[in-house]
Amino acid sequence: MTMVRDHVVPLLPQPRLLRGSRLRIGMVAPAWLAVPPTGYGGIERVVSVLTEGLVAAGHDVTLFAASGSVTRARLVTPLESSPPFGDPASVSDELYHSTAAFLRADEFDIVHDHTGMGPALGALLNGRTPVVHTLHGQWTAPIRRLLALVHDRIRLVAISQAQRAANPRLRYAGMVYNGIDLAAHPFHPAKEEFLIFVGRVSPEKRPEIAVEVARAAKLPLVMVIKRSEPAERAYFDEVVAPLLGEDVVVLDQPPHEVKVDLLGRARALLFPIDWPEPFGLVMTEAMACGTPVITCPLGAAPEVVANGTTGFLCSTPSQMVDAVAAATELRPEDCRARVEERFSAQAMVAGYEVVYRAALASAGPLVNHAPLERIAEPA
Amino acid sequence: MTMVRDHVVPLLPQPRLLRGSRLRIGMVAPAWLAVPPTGYGGIERVVSVLTEGLVAAGHDVTLFAASGSVTRARLVTPLESSPPFGDPASVSDELYHSTAAFLRADEFDIVHDHTGMGPALGALLNGRTPVVHTLHGQWTAPIRRLLALVHDRIRLVAISQAQRAANPRLRYAGMVYNGIDLAAHPFHPAKEEFLIFVGRVSPEKRPEIAVEVARAAKLPLVMVIKRSEPAERAYFDEVVAPLLGEDVVVLDQPPHEVKVDLLGRARALLFPIDWPEPFGLVMTEAMACGTPVITCPLGAAPEVVANGTTGFLCSTPSQMVDAVAAATELRPEDCRARVEERFSAQAMVAGYEVVYRAALASAGPLVNHAPLERIAEPA
Repeated sequence: MTMVRDHVVPLLPQPRLLRGSRLRIGMVAPAWLAVPPTGYGGIERVVSVLTEGLVAAGHDVTLFAASGSVTRARLVTPLESSPPFGDPASVSDELYHSTAAFLRADEFDIVHDHTGMGPALGALLNGRTPVVHTLHGQWTAPIRRLLALVHDRIRLVAISQAQRAANPRLRYAGMVYNGIDLAAHPFHPAKEEFLIFVGRVSPEKRPEIAVEVARAAKLPLVMVIKRSEPAERAYFDEVVAPLLGEDVVVLDQPPHEVKVDLLGRARALLFPIDWPEPFGLVMTEAMACGTPVITCPLGAAPEVVANGTTGFLCSTPSQMVDAVAAATELRPEDCRARVEERFSAQAMVAGYEVVYRAALASAGPLVNHAPLERIAEPA
Repeated sequence: MTMVRDHVVPLLPQPRLLRGSRLRIGMVAPAWLAVPPTGYGGIERVVSVLTEGLVAAGHDVTLFAASGSVTRARLVTPLESSPPFGDPASVSDELYHSTAAFLRADEFDIVHDHTGMGPALGALLNGRTPVVHTLHGQWTAPIRRLLALVHDRIRLVAISQAQRAANPRLRYAGMVYNGIDLAAHPFHPAKEEFLIFVGRVSPEKRPEIAVEVARAAKLPLVMVIKRSEPAERAYFDEVVAPLLGEDVVVLDQPPHEVKVDLLGRARALLFPIDWPEPFGLVMTEAMACGTPVITCPLGAAPEVVANGTTGFLCSTPSQMVDAVAAATELRPEDCRARVEERFSAQAMVAGYEVVYRAALASAGPLVNHAPLERIAEPA
């Protein structure tokens, strides 16, 4: 079979050849948190799911990540120990981590970067190895400026149509939704009489509105929060703490199993964002567990949530209170199905394979690659 | 004449060809301070002297520097305004500034970098354009680590033998002493009865020992200081201020003309360093003005100062007090001559031309270059 392929391959047009080949992928995660993260860490969770999915699809993946990471890929940890998360003094650590990875670009067919300095470092490789960079964050002025400088030298991937539309001047290689590991998010069709909030304690996430809505809806609220940084602690102390009462339970970065158990049992996720959320991973986690999402029509939320089927897009807290009542009418099976169809690990892996192969097709022919053991077809 | 050269050139061995050619040089200064600096800024002063010297030698120099810079080279200011000096939040500014410069590497025969991120960015160019990086600072652990990663992909230049000896494992392209503009440092043979200290207010520079020595020597002291950063202000308030009296005058970053006038009139410069100073530009400034230097046998000081001729290397404050008396025996002409011979702009320019040409000779042939109008021969 392999022999036949080897004979046929040179006659096929380039994309067909590439589709069947095993790619050597250098996956560059941020310097700070382990992959997967033990607590908070949306980027690291997505990188983990993608990396394991690519390995399962037969690719040869090298993961550059913080020490403590666990993966079936080849793991490289440039730094002996991870710098403190968010510490600006760790610039030299970040530079070292990313540089160590990019210096090995020649070993890979594709470098897939998820770091802050990666767009600059990747642009200087000048196409020798194509560099794919996933846009995980918001459009800050410094990020807009840097990407405007380098966007035609790397392959930018947006994580939602909304994110891409908010900065349409850049050249994009594609849009690939974040995917989650469905097996790690058990479907829980039976709901209990409480609501849940999951997120950083910040003005973008508006945890205080979740408290207000739950109280008006006369339901207890479980808050799964992160408040590890000074600004988060200050926001909690000043804005959230004064509102707390017996009807609110606060859990600070509980284990994943605790979080998904609570997500699955809740009547709905309250996600009252006040910013253009580029994706909103927790919305997919809730839906995977069979739980509808009550959020706002901002950023990617209208793409992630099927309004009236897997949740509600609300513009005011009082609309959210009404949505809490209406959520009992929604079918947990529809919530689960939406994630299976659009936000699964498999869909994400297939999406990035298309991006990788398009990058390679335009960058030149691939040589000396073994055929894939299992060929993952793009969705 | 040009015609003859053009015919002869292909027959000459590569280094001879390169010696006579006009180089296109991309000079990358740090993002923060103008070149030349208005006050403190040793790196920016050296970059300015080097840039103007290379232009005078006939090279085609493009200077990437902070806005407000003044040069006869082609000036590029990637940032509209300079970020606050030393602000760790300005990482994105620094990354943008340096990336904007390195993305243009293909326009130059040589990129000469003086920035913190330059070694990493330059290493990723992978020799397409040779990158020379001058080691301006001390051997911190992060710098040792980064350079160990990239030293065989860029051309490191030490600024003293002592600096190089303190980290002998790296591959160096050479050692080039910093040079100063002799015309901007007038020779002042007549001395007055006071001493001078010039430097940052920090434990490395030990300004309090200068006060102690001057008082024991019964001479007034002029202190030309920088105390703009929090640590410097704290050190001044806690360590220096309690010692001040009528015999000490403090000037905070005066104009250059005021500084060199005082340097020239002083009996000696007190430079009681407590760290391995990688070069010590102010020692050459003092000597250029005809003023001997009283310092310690640390770092580059024994290379910069001719002990017993242009100053004294002292291990204790009491030795320094003795040296203040002995300084009257030293000849201002000998101080000036040492700088003219070793630490002039011309010597520095010639030194870097040797480094550039060696880098190009090993990197491959040069093409399409006009001959130099004035050929600067290496010293």
